[in-house]
Amino acid sequence: MERVPILKIGDILLVSIQVDMSDQTAIQLQEDLAERIVATGCHGVIIDITALDIVDSFVGRMLSTIASISKVLDAETVVVGMRPAVAITLVELGLSLNGIRTALNVERGMELIAATRADDGDVAFDDEDADPTATP
Amino acid sequence: MERVPILKIGDILLVSIQVDMSDQTAIQLQEDLAERIVATGCHGVIIDITALDIVDSFVGRMLSTIASISKVLDAETVVVGMRPAVAITLVELGLSLNGIRTALNVERGMELIAATRADDGDVAFDDEDADPTATP
Repeated sequence: MERVPILKIGDILLVSIQVDMSDQTAIQLQEDLAERIVATGCHGVIIDITALDIVDSFVGRMLSTIASISKVLDAETVVVGMRPAVAITLVELGLSLNGIRTALNVERGMELIAATRADDGDVAFDDEDADPTATP
Repeated sequence: MERVPILKIGDILLVSIQVDMSDQTAIQLQEDLAERIVATGCHGVIIDITALDIVDSFVGRMLSTIASISKVLDAETVVVGMRPAVAITLVELGLSLNGIRTALNVERGMELIAATRADDGDVAFDDEDADPTATP
C-alpha cells in the first residue's frame, strides 16, 4: 500500500499529494497525519495539490476530513498549489471545499498559518485584557 | 506525463519523489529543477525520498545528475528521508551516490544547506582576509 509522506518543517507538517488517492491511502494519510500532529505538536498542516489534475468529490471530502481532524487537534489546514483548471472544475461541479483554507503556494500557506496563529494569540490577549474591567 | 512538483520554501526548492520515475519523468524533473533554480535564485535543493521503497541504479544516477546540475547552478543538493532498508540495499548493490549529500529529514537538510552556505561565506571572507598579507 502506498503511503503519502509527511514532512515536518518547523511548526508545520507538509503533505504533497501526487498519487491517485484510494480509500486505503486516504484513510492511512488521515491516521498518519493525526498521529504526527499529536507527536510533533505542530500547529499547521499544508497540503500541496500541485500535482493533481483533478479534484473530485472523494478527494474534496478527504481534504475536508483532514481539515476537521486537524482543527480538533489545534492545527490549521491550508491547501496550496491548486491549478486554475482544478478550481474551475470544482466550481462547475458545485463542490465547495468546506472549512478548507487555500493559498497560492507553500510560502503563502506558511504565512497564512503564522498570521492565523498570531491572530489567535491577540484574541487570547484581548480576553485577558478585558477581564479586569469585567470583574467589578 | 506525470510531473514531480517542485515546492519553494524560502531559499530552498523541495522535491518529494513519490512516483516511479520513468525516463521521461526523470528528464522532465531535471529540466524543471534547473529552470526553477535559475528563475528563483535558490541556493539549495532538497530531494525527499521517504516514499521510495527502493533506489535502483536509475534513480541513483538521476539523483547524481540533479546534484551535478544544481552544483553548476550554485545550489547545494541534499537527499533526505532515505529508509534504512534503502541504504542497506544501496550498499549491497555497490551503488555509491556520487556527489550526493544526505540528511535524516527535511529540517536537518535545511540546516546542512544553511551551514554549507555559511561555510562558503567564511571561505570567501578568509580569502579577503588573506589578501593583504599576500600582497606585500
